[in-house]
Amino acid sequence: MKKVGVAILGLGIVGGGAYKILTQNRDFYCKTQNVDIFVKSVLECDKARIESLGVPQEQIAENIFEIVSDPDVNIVVECIGGITDARSYVIDALNAGKTVVTSNKELICKYSHELERTAKRLNAGLYFEASCVGGVPIVRTLLDGVQSNKISSIEGIINGTTNYILTEMSKEGVGYQDALAAAQRLGYAESDPTADVEGFDAAYKLSILSSLAFHTKVPFSKVFREGISSVTPEDISNGSDLGYTLKLLAVGKDTGDGIEVRVHPTFVKKSHPLAGVDGSFNAVYLTGDAVGEVMLYGRGAGELPTGSAIVSDIIYAATHEGSRYSTFKNNATAEKDVKFVSDFASAYYMRLDVTDRAGALAKITAMLARKNISIVELLQKSNGAESATVVLVTHSTHETAIKNAVSRINASGVASVRSVIRVLS
Amino acid sequence: MKKVGVAILGLGIVGGGAYKILTQNRDFYCKTQNVDIFVKSVLECDKARIESLGVPQEQIAENIFEIVSDPDVNIVVECIGGITDARSYVIDALNAGKTVVTSNKELICKYSHELERTAKRLNAGLYFEASCVGGVPIVRTLLDGVQSNKISSIEGIINGTTNYILTEMSKEGVGYQDALAAAQRLGYAESDPTADVEGFDAAYKLSILSSLAFHTKVPFSKVFREGISSVTPEDISNGSDLGYTLKLLAVGKDTGDGIEVRVHPTFVKKSHPLAGVDGSFNAVYLTGDAVGEVMLYGRGAGELPTGSAIVSDIIYAATHEGSRYSTFKNNATAEKDVKFVSDFASAYYMRLDVTDRAGALAKITAMLARKNISIVELLQKSNGAESATVVLVTHSTHETAIKNAVSRINASGVASVRSVIRVLS
Repeated sequence: MKKVGVAILGLGIVGGGAYKILTQNRDFYCKTQNVDIFVKSVLECDKARIESLGVPQEQIAENIFEIVSDPDVNIVVECIGGITDARSYVIDALNAGKTVVTSNKELICKYSHELERTAKRLNAGLYFEASCVGGVPIVRTLLDGVQSNKISSIEGIINGTTNYILTEMSKEGVGYQDALAAAQRLGYAESDPTADVEGFDAAYKLSILSSLAFHTKVPFSKVFREGISSVTPEDISNGSDLGYTLKLLAVGKDTGDGIEVRVHPTFVKKSHPLAGVDGSFNAVYLTGDAVGEVMLYGRGAGELPTGSAIVSDIIYAATHEGSRYSTFKNNATAEKDVKFVSDFASAYYMRLDVTDRAGALAKITAMLARKNISIVELLQKSNGAESATVVLVTHSTHETAIKNAVSRINASGVASVRSVIRVLS
Repeated sequence: MKKVGVAILGLGIVGGGAYKILTQNRDFYCKTQNVDIFVKSVLECDKARIESLGVPQEQIAENIFEIVSDPDVNIVVECIGGITDARSYVIDALNAGKTVVTSNKELICKYSHELERTAKRLNAGLYFEASCVGGVPIVRTLLDGVQSNKISSIEGIINGTTNYILTEMSKEGVGYQDALAAAQRLGYAESDPTADVEGFDAAYKLSILSSLAFHTKVPFSKVFREGISSVTPEDISNGSDLGYTLKLLAVGKDTGDGIEVRVHPTFVKKSHPLAGVDGSFNAVYLTGDAVGEVMLYGRGAGELPTGSAIVSDIIYAATHEGSRYSTFKNNATAEKDVKFVSDFASAYYMRLDVTDRAGALAKITAMLARKNISIVELLQKSNGAESATVVLVTHSTHETAIKNAVSRINASGVASVRSVIRVLS
């Protein structure tokens, strides 16, 4: 039976998960995949972690050179994170002709061009299923499951931390800070939660998934990004009254006029399949010209789910040696030839405090109409004798039109706009 | 650029869909997949169909021999259906060293052993994504996306016709015959609906998907099958009151004690992701030891969605020539070594007419208790002065225990069991 040696760089959550799966399921893969995949070495400086995973002494490597020069190592798994050591180790491994499997979304997002070039030159494989949406096989699906389609849109709940926080806020009616604290207590959010709550993590993943879906490089810098830290329970509750659930949505579209990529809080109709994706679950909903709508749902993070993606890539690499360039092979359009759309179209939810009630509504709708913004739904709630809250949802319009309208309303004196949230239409 | 010639046998719904996609997207595949896939020939005797698809004269083949002897045909797509001509044509194609892509679930379900053997001997590929769940890439996912997992269960809504009928009955409150007639008017059900409504179609697919998930051959004959033709609006409504939605569920489990495979109407908790899969949509929910729960959702039938699966297989075959045996390679356990479980465990819903009200409930629960069946929930509805309807849901028990309990209750004279429906727990 063919033997495939694996080295794991970094035994944190994901690397440790991959180590456990490979160790526990080795016989199972011999039987079902006809290949003996074994851990040859690990690179990890945390001795306590090595001990808790029960790594035997002979698997512990001193440094990256020991690993890349080892002829028994066929596949190098990078689970270090960050983009300094990780990048140089991955380049070293590829330069030594090793196939690389990584969970590092920032690395793939920012350096896929360089890594891909190196991999091709050395006839090494480069796999990164684990970089996007944990155990959900969305990369494999884009490459080998719906590749017959021109994909027009990809919409995803692809960050578990923010989805947990928004689900808590929706179901328990608590504020953002309380929900964040709960997420931190449960280990769903880090002590510095910026990367998750401000949408960086989702934006890295969206850059990767859009690059695959639209067959070009979609740079991180093109991703419009707005986080969830200013979301209020009031807006969530108003949205719910209008039939919406609030999600941090990553949206990639190829409209024909160009590509738009954006991560922001989004109201989703409760009847939409994405609306029911709660807590730490993730999902990606895509639309293709032939397949129509497809959704993949599952655990977007965690030791074993993300480890599952790592090990599925390892098995794929071990059993598909004749067709290695399965990764970014689809990048047909050079980045410079792609048009990116920043003034994208969307429907919008808006909450306004209306101070002067008599005639104020008519003035607001007139100001919106002047920007060609029409209203689908409007709710007025009295806040007492002299003021009211108005909540409205518009038909599809454009980002600049809404921004202009908001400035105009705020300058008018009859109302002030308290929040603007995009609505999936 | 590499050229790959395709022949399509049968230009019905699926074959016609594949023809349209291949023709429309040929340039797109040149750009994104770096392979020129072209239709070399078609085999179809319906001249009107050939005309409506605009098939040029030079693509029309006279017979299968013309196709299998054509050196420019690399891939043969079988969309004839049935198992007589289809089987012999597929064998002919494989024997000529052609790779075969098929949408024929009955063929793959019943003859995969023979076809697989022939394909291996001739170094030809054999692909069948389109045989299961239309455009949803569940075969690719089982083979290349979650193959690192020991799959313990696969639960699916994998027949669009029955899901449309049950959704209509649930949402509109209509009876089975009316919902079937509506499905027939819309083209979702055939004039003889047996294959769909009695669960044969779902059972073929379950046999294929379970074979892949559990790495053995799961024969059609082992699939327990119960259709939807005796489902009543009353049971759907009672289930809804108890928090359940009724679905025709295909369930495959590897419990450790053996494999169980079954297709039957099933109550699913409304909070379960499968409960929201409505109308002609399909979904497969699977559980793996590492990835946890994953669900794939999409259109389970139709010209373009199923055509998408055909063409994705064609592209995969064209771009993965070095790793052809991606199909049933995982069949590690010989069929004779597999234990199949027929007395499976499940929770049950039961509706009873209780004639003698005084003390009747106590007698019924005592009869259930004697079979070690305990009750989770019970509703009693008065039907008038002397009779009542009792609806109950049990804890998990076994098929034989329920059958024995039902016989005993019916023989007791205090009540008669009107329906028994399994409940997903």
